[in-house]
Amino acid sequence: MTTESDFIASLRALATHPAARGLMDDAAVLEIAGTNLVLTHDMIVESVHFLADDPPDDVAWKLVAVNLSDLAAKGAQPLGVLLGFSLAGEGKWDGAFIEGLRQALDAFNVALLGGDTVSVPQSAPRSLGLTAIGTAARAPSREGASSGEQLWISGSIGDAGAGLRILGGEDGPADLIKRYRRPRPRLELGLALAPLVGAMMDVSDGLLIDASRMAEASGVSIEIDLGTIPLSSAFLKMLGEERQARLFAATAGDDYELLFTAAKERAPELLALSERLGVPLNPIGRCREGTGLALLDGGKAVPLPDRLGYEHRTPA
Amino acid sequence: MTTESDFIASLRALATHPAARGLMDDAAVLEIAGTNLVLTHDMIVESVHFLADDPPDDVAWKLVAVNLSDLAAKGAQPLGVLLGFSLAGEGKWDGAFIEGLRQALDAFNVALLGGDTVSVPQSAPRSLGLTAIGTAARAPSREGASSGEQLWISGSIGDAGAGLRILGGEDGPADLIKRYRRPRPRLELGLALAPLVGAMMDVSDGLLIDASRMAEASGVSIEIDLGTIPLSSAFLKMLGEERQARLFAATAGDDYELLFTAAKERAPELLALSERLGVPLNPIGRCREGTGLALLDGGKAVPLPDRLGYEHRTPA
Repeated sequence: MTTESDFIASLRALATHPAARGLMDDAAVLEIAGTNLVLTHDMIVESVHFLADDPPDDVAWKLVAVNLSDLAAKGAQPLGVLLGFSLAGEGKWDGAFIEGLRQALDAFNVALLGGDTVSVPQSAPRSLGLTAIGTAARAPSREGASSGEQLWISGSIGDAGAGLRILGGEDGPADLIKRYRRPRPRLELGLALAPLVGAMMDVSDGLLIDASRMAEASGVSIEIDLGTIPLSSAFLKMLGEERQARLFAATAGDDYELLFTAAKERAPELLALSERLGVPLNPIGRCREGTGLALLDGGKAVPLPDRLGYEHRTPA
Repeated sequence: MTTESDFIASLRALATHPAARGLMDDAAVLEIAGTNLVLTHDMIVESVHFLADDPPDDVAWKLVAVNLSDLAAKGAQPLGVLLGFSLAGEGKWDGAFIEGLRQALDAFNVALLGGDTVSVPQSAPRSLGLTAIGTAARAPSREGASSGEQLWISGSIGDAGAGLRILGGEDGPADLIKRYRRPRPRLELGLALAPLVGAMMDVSDGLLIDASRMAEASGVSIEIDLGTIPLSSAFLKMLGEERQARLFAATAGDDYELLFTAAKERAPELLALSERLGVPLNPIGRCREGTGLALLDGGKAVPLPDRLGYEHRTPA
């Protein structure tokens, strides 16, 4: 039995090139001819990351979006993607997948550059991979947070998790399902934030677990004010704003928002940027000397939940 | 039911960026800041491209080698790879895979830059993907062959196919198994050939099918002299040199040799290069006006075999 963390530890021992960032970041950053090339590869597997009856166009969209979100988190302008596709020979599914792929490539203005298609038995779960490549003037890492900086988050948190609960049978606004199935990577925002931030990453596995990874990578302690986590009106309508709902939002994952740190003096600039791009940016905590994650609610310490988010992925 | 060719045709309709080379080449070639970035992504799937009881270190080696062979065919110097790994939680297999990966990265001096590890049920076939990235001064395409050029091949053909037959129970020299399990991409040769060739590609699916793809992409007819296809002494010992053995060699695939065209005047330069690098380079045919593939044996036309090679892959 190998756990993912054992396996990834073995891979890390091989990934000694500085561009690999120790396999600790959202993407690899390779300097070529004075340009920062940002590279990421994420896979999604049927019955693990999506369900056999999920709409295939949404599966394609999500595969593109989760990879572009890694580029966004490194302030990269995407250039193109390579697709690794398992073809089980079900024409309707495959055709709808292609249509979702087309929509995502169009929406984010990204080129399909290549890839591989392999035929697999229909009994095998579909395994889909995507490599995304982009360029960045400055590619912030997860390691860049400093004690004294504020912690910020874009957009709203918990919507995709609430959407998944609706798909599981609960009542709630349909908009939330869309947040789960059709995440929109914060590409424009990531580009604009890159020169302003200390550390930056995307929230994919859950705000708390991702913040704890940032704290660990940066060698700081991160304190989050639960009451300041931005919740959408649709989320509030469905789940309210009590502590339990906020803890759910902070651990649900699939948000694909940008989590970043910045010096306090940056706040006016960040708020102006938020205004200009029409994307909410909210301070939700701060970095301190020390290690680990701390939660506050109404100024009082709150114990961390047992589960901070998903642990099923290597970052890059 | 979707066939691979239907699906790939749908993908081609999306891959309009010139860097994608119409999904017809071994790799995508993207110009960034005056540098040709060469990108490829190949997958291998258990029970399709390798067997559950194949040594896992060889599986890792092959995954790296087949991708680097695509870079070699575009005259690229490899920079790094991103790994997409399905973890089924069998520690011994995974550990041996990592060891084979380490060996391949060391042998070809390539960095592990990132990737993704996903846990899958043990019942699911392993699906492994690799993205390789490199840079090239000039990246020859499959489209570059001109009427009048000679067709050349590196090394020897058919060894991997013979090795697979030994694994299937036939008698033969163990060296041939190594050619099947541990192919060596022609990286140094590809770099040296890139400025000298018309078209260049690697032979992965079979000499004849790959040559027919080059003919189609270039809009020429390619004529191959069956008697000039280079066979190793181990191959000759096992299978002889009669027409049937030569047709087997020319359709077996997994050779990872370089197939290229060059003007006749280049022959002395190519032979000197062969001498310098210690890699056999042999002319095996020519490009003519027209379309399609033609076979000669002893100067006489030979009918094409029904099966030219494997058709199970998108090229890039």
